[in-house]
Amino acid sequence: MKYKTRSTRRMLHGLFACLLASAVSAFGADPSASAKPPTMADVLAASKPADWHALDPADTLYLQLATGRVVIELAPQFAPHTVANIKALAREKYYDGLDILRVQDNYVVQWGDLNADNPAKRRSLGKAQSTLKAEFTLPLGKDFTFTPLQDRDGYAPQTGFAGDFPAALDLTTHATWLTHCYGTVGVGRDNDANSGNGAELYVVIGGARWLDRNITVVGRVVQGMELLSSLPRGSGELGFYTKIEHPVPIESIRLAADVPPAQRTNLEILRTDTPTFATLIESRRNRHDDWYKVPAGYIDVCNVPIPVRAVGAMKP
Amino acid sequence: MKYKTRSTRRMLHGLFACLLASAVSAFGADPSASAKPPTMADVLAASKPADWHALDPADTLYLQLATGRVVIELAPQFAPHTVANIKALAREKYYDGLDILRVQDNYVVQWGDLNADNPAKRRSLGKAQSTLKAEFTLPLGKDFTFTPLQDRDGYAPQTGFAGDFPAALDLTTHATWLTHCYGTVGVGRDNDANSGNGAELYVVIGGARWLDRNITVVGRVVQGMELLSSLPRGSGELGFYTKIEHPVPIESIRLAADVPPAQRTNLEILRTDTPTFATLIESRRNRHDDWYKVPAGYIDVCNVPIPVRAVGAMKP
Repeated sequence: MKYKTRSTRRMLHGLFACLLASAVSAFGADPSASAKPPTMADVLAASKPADWHALDPADTLYLQLATGRVVIELAPQFAPHTVANIKALAREKYYDGLDILRVQDNYVVQWGDLNADNPAKRRSLGKAQSTLKAEFTLPLGKDFTFTPLQDRDGYAPQTGFAGDFPAALDLTTHATWLTHCYGTVGVGRDNDANSGNGAELYVVIGGARWLDRNITVVGRVVQGMELLSSLPRGSGELGFYTKIEHPVPIESIRLAADVPPAQRTNLEILRTDTPTFATLIESRRNRHDDWYKVPAGYIDVCNVPIPVRAVGAMKP
Repeated sequence: MKYKTRSTRRMLHGLFACLLASAVSAFGADPSASAKPPTMADVLAASKPADWHALDPADTLYLQLATGRVVIELAPQFAPHTVANIKALAREKYYDGLDILRVQDNYVVQWGDLNADNPAKRRSLGKAQSTLKAEFTLPLGKDFTFTPLQDRDGYAPQTGFAGDFPAALDLTTHATWLTHCYGTVGVGRDNDANSGNGAELYVVIGGARWLDRNITVVGRVVQGMELLSSLPRGSGELGFYTKIEHPVPIESIRLAADVPPAQRTNLEILRTDTPTFATLIESRRNRHDDWYKVPAGYIDVCNVPIPVRAVGAMKP
C-alpha cells in the first residue's frame, strides 16, 4: 500500500486498477464472512507500539485559548517556507493577544491581526517574511511516499495519506497537495496567490475541498478541535465577528519545542503506511457492528480518522 | 435536468452519460470563456420569483432554544409515517422541556428523553406511535421527480435533488433516499431498524454519508444551524452530555401551521428543478471570482447550497 513516486509507470497502473476496483466494488454486495470483521475499536486495541509515532515537538504548535489548548501538527514537507515563517512568528510571540476574527458556520475559524491592512496600526512581523511564494502544491519528488486510498474521489484523481495528513495527487501534473478536510490548517491570503505569510491562519470546521490547490496548507489540528468548532458564529459577512460578538482572544501560540517538556501535550499518531491503518480504513468503509444495516462500501478521504492518543496510552 | 422515474431506460442511459461526462471533465482544463461566468451571488440576484417557493407551514417545524429558533423543513414524501408521528408529538408538546442530550464534534446534535429506556420515568408519547417501521429508503414511484447532479459520487450510484433535499438513488434496487449532509435531520434508533419513532431526533453537524440507508431521514435545517453547531461538545462517550456540562433545554418544538401567522418565520427555498439552480451549481463547481486560481471541476452533493431567503427578500 506504500509506494514511492520513482516507479511512476507502476503507480499509474496501480492507480487505474484501484479506481476500477473501486468502481466495481463501491455498490456491490457486502461480502459475507464467517468471522465478524473488526471494528475501529478492535483495530486500535490490537495495534502495536510500532504502529504509532510521537509528534515531533519541532513541528507542533500549541494554540492556547481561555478554554484550553489546541494542538496543531505542522506539515513542513508540503509548505517548508510558510511553516518556517509561522515558526518564526510563534517564536516572536507575534500571535499572542490577537483575536479570532471569523467563524463561518460549516466552513472556517480564522485568526490574525485585525489591522493587517493598515500599515500605521498593524503589528510588526519582526524577522518573519511579509510575503511568501504560494505553496499550494508540491512537485512529486523522488523520496515522496504516499499511501493511496482505493476509493475514488471527485475532487482529485487520487487521494490517500502523506505521513499524518490526508492528501491528493495528480500524476498528469506531477503534483501532490494536502486536502481540505475537517481540522485542516491553512494560510489566509488576499487575491494575489503570493500574498499569504502565515500571520493569518484558518482551521476548516466543515468540508472545503474546493479550496484544494488554491491556498497553502500548513498542517492539521490533532487535538482540541471542539474548542474551535463550538465557537459562536460571526454575524458579519463571511462569518466575520462584528461588535455584537465578544472577541475570542488567542492567549498564545507556541512551538511545542519551545515549551518546557513538563508542559507539553505528548501525543502519538497512528502511522498511515501500516497494515493496521489499512485495516482501520476498511473497518470504517464497511461498518459491521450491530447497529449498521447497510455498509457504505465506500469512504471519503476526509472521513478516514487518523487516530491520535496520549503517549503511553493503551487506547486513543 | 428533470426527469420522472417512469422512463427508467432513458434515465439509465442518461445516468451513464452523466457519469462518463463527469469522469472526463472532472480533472480537465478550465474552459476559458470570453465573458466571466456568474458567481452564486450573480445567479441569485438574477433569479425570478418563480424560481422560489414558500415553505409549507404544514411541513415546517420550529425548534425553539434559549438562543433562538431553528427552522426545520420536513420531508413527508420520504418518511410519511415518521413525519406524521413527529407532527403528532409536536402537537402534544411532547418535546417541550426535553434537553439536548448529545453533541458529538463533526457528527451530530441529538435531543430526546433522557429516560426513554425507563418505563417508570419516561415521558408519555400520548397518541403517537412508540415504534414505526423503518423508512430508510423510498421505492422509486411513478410520480417521483429527481434532478440529477452530473458529478459522480462515492456513496451512491447517483446523487441529486428531490424537491428541497439532497438525495440519492439506485436504479438496481429501485430505491431513493435523502443523503446525510450538513443540516440533515434524522431519527435516533436502537439496534433494531424499526425502533425509531421520532421522539429522539438528531441534526448532522459534520459529514455523515455512511449513515445513508441506515436511518430514517425526516428533513433538514433551513435556518438556525449555527445555534446547534456552536453548542458545547459533550464530554461523554459519543459526545453525550455528562454532569459536567450545563443542560441545553428545548423550549418547544411546534409545527409552523400551529403558530399564529404573525409569529412565523416565512422563508422561501430556491427550486432545485430550475435552470437557475443548475446555473448555481455550476457557479459553485467552478468558481471564477478573482480569489480562486484553480476551479475544483467537481462538486459534492452535500456542498451544493440550496438557498433560503426571507419571503419578500430580494437576496437570500
